Amino acid sequence: MASSSPPTEASVSVPKLLDLTIDNITPNTILINSQSPDARLTYLMSRLVSHLHDFARETRLSTTEWMQAITFLIACGQISNSVRNEFILLSDVLGLSLLVDNIDHPKPPGGTEGSVLGPFHTHDAPVLPNGSSMTSDPEGEPMLAICTVKDLQGNPVKGVKIDIWETDSSGHYDVQHAERDEPSERCVMESDEEGRFWFVGLKPVSYPIPHDGPVGKLLQMLKRHCWRPAHVHFMFSKEGWDQLITALYLRGDPYETSDAVFGVKQSLIIDLEKVDKETAEKYGVKEGIWLLKRDFVLTTQEETEKLKDQLAVEALQKLGLKMKLIDHLPVPDLD
Amino acid sequence: MASSSPPTEASVSVPKLLDLTIDNITPNTILINSQSPDARLTYLMSRLVSHLHDFARETRLSTTEWMQAITFLIACGQISNSVRNEFILLSDVLGLSLLVDNIDHPKPPGGTEGSVLGPFHTHDAPVLPNGSSMTSDPEGEPMLAICTVKDLQGNPVKGVKIDIWETDSSGHYDVQHAERDEPSERCVMESDEEGRFWFVGLKPVSYPIPHDGPVGKLLQMLKRHCWRPAHVHFMFSKEGWDQLITALYLRGDPYETSDAVFGVKQSLIIDLEKVDKETAEKYGVKEGIWLLKRDFVLTTQEETEKLKDQLAVEALQKLGLKMKLIDHLPVPDLD
Repeated sequence: MASSSPPTEASVSVPKLLDLTIDNITPNTILINSQSPDARLTYLMSRLVSHLHDFARETRLSTTEWMQAITFLIACGQISNSVRNEFILLSDVLGLSLLVDNIDHPKPPGGTEGSVLGPFHTHDAPVLPNGSSMTSDPEGEPMLAICTVKDLQGNPVKGVKIDIWETDSSGHYDVQHAERDEPSERCVMESDEEGRFWFVGLKPVSYPIPHDGPVGKLLQMLKRHCWRPAHVHFMFSKEGWDQLITALYLRGDPYETSDAVFGVKQSLIIDLEKVDKETAEKYGVKEGIWLLKRDFVLTTQEETEKLKDQLAVEALQKLGLKMKLIDHLPVPDLD
Repeated sequence: MASSSPPTEASVSVPKLLDLTIDNITPNTILINSQSPDARLTYLMSRLVSHLHDFARETRLSTTEWMQAITFLIACGQISNSVRNEFILLSDVLGLSLLVDNIDHPKPPGGTEGSVLGPFHTHDAPVLPNGSSMTSDPEGEPMLAICTVKDLQGNPVKGVKIDIWETDSSGHYDVQHAERDEPSERCVMESDEEGRFWFVGLKPVSYPIPHDGPVGKLLQMLKRHCWRPAHVHFMFSKEGWDQLITALYLRGDPYETSDAVFGVKQSLIIDLEKVDKETAEKYGVKEGIWLLKRDFVLTTQEETEKLKDQLAVEALQKLGLKMKLIDHLPVPDLD
């Protein structure tokens, strides 16, 4: 492991990789991975290799277990397709998705909290004008949603693109039906001059996440259920504003406190009302159907980045790591 | 996160999963994953979740980076097939494969050291009698290999199944050729009464690991080369004996000290000789072709398990972990 080596374009001295042992393979792998000028990549790889190797050392991982993990990962990749993402599902059930959202999209007081994206967002949802229905399911219970998008100061935010998606009344997203030929129970809307958007969907139902694949088998081995409480997904995007990925959950759902993917936050639990006569006439819907009312609060990119930087610095200091931020992401501070 | 919850068959009290934060998501995920009676599974999942979450916290992993990782993992799964395993390749270039082999198959003094399995072992190699040729490549330089298998005391071990595989002269395994219709440069032999096996193969050549997939792109981003020094793979299997996965490397290869997958050990580097007239006549090969001579030393399963247990106990004590061994694998000792 001496430092004599052929010249490379890198600035680190590349180790001689020979006779690597349980004790020295980690620093040597990190060194050989440190030749890129991209400090963030180098840092990510360094922490990845450390954790991966520590995991093997702490568990004395066996060759058989390692091969089971390889087989599991292959299966996750192979069951995935353009409308199914088993690795997002895996990240969701391991709590990683929610953690990353919490880290990357912190919310100041008053900002609407985030939740998990999940594996069922698609890019082919139709853009619908306000007031449209996004459902084609005659079995579901219709629900009028009347929402606004505001900033932290209470001003309406217009021109926000809002992706909305939910399951049909059977608890399946459109993409889970083999015969799907067009999107359903999903749409993209835009907030109007007063920050408003409204649409007709379905009262959401609780449903099991896809459990016919490797992630489902894992949950079964872990004796965990695979249910999510009833919810509707929302994603808000507008240049200059922090993208908000969130969901609203129905109060009283049997899985309210045991969501298989850890997405529920108290501030996102809602009570549905019923549409009264006046509202029915105003919005052109039937009286007595379900009514969801919600004001969402977005934060600007600047507000979020400032908060994110502050929280990162505090957290990294607590961890005893000497870091600097580049593009709001930490890299080791070697100066 | 109180402990009131519906009854389950598990012994842990399942937490209320609500309002999970950067700080509390890890213990709660570990708790919900601790309902299986399989203590080893619970321990593996607990360490996996801890490391995964710590990685995200220490790097302040962004949603964009998370999605890049998801996309990378999907691509690794999708490029894999019955003869290509991109996740083994990933494990190899991250140093995990060698580490796991070192942990799970420790060798007492005198035992032949292990090396990486790699992604190119197949299960369809022909069983050939001693003296056979396993190559069909007229371009390669023929090499006679004369080997023995012995135990730590120097006694021959008969009836050992030996998987042998290498690339052709172009540096490709048979499975890397699109038009492959039958195995080549691979075979399975059996050691005879005196522990001997011999065969004709090719003088191995250095070659790049497959770099047309996601792992190749990763190496490129990391400014790492993708070459392996010239080697022949061997895998020894016999009931009651510790499976030995190893390889022999040619001395003086330009990649001898920079193997992309960290497999080289000094004790596995060999010098080839040339076949003399007497040997040529005895083995029915041409005089002057390459000659590889090697005595392999296997350990019994009992010898390896004893050593493995001892090293595990020492290592876990050093890490400050209170563990007990079940089936030679650690689980937390809660008594």
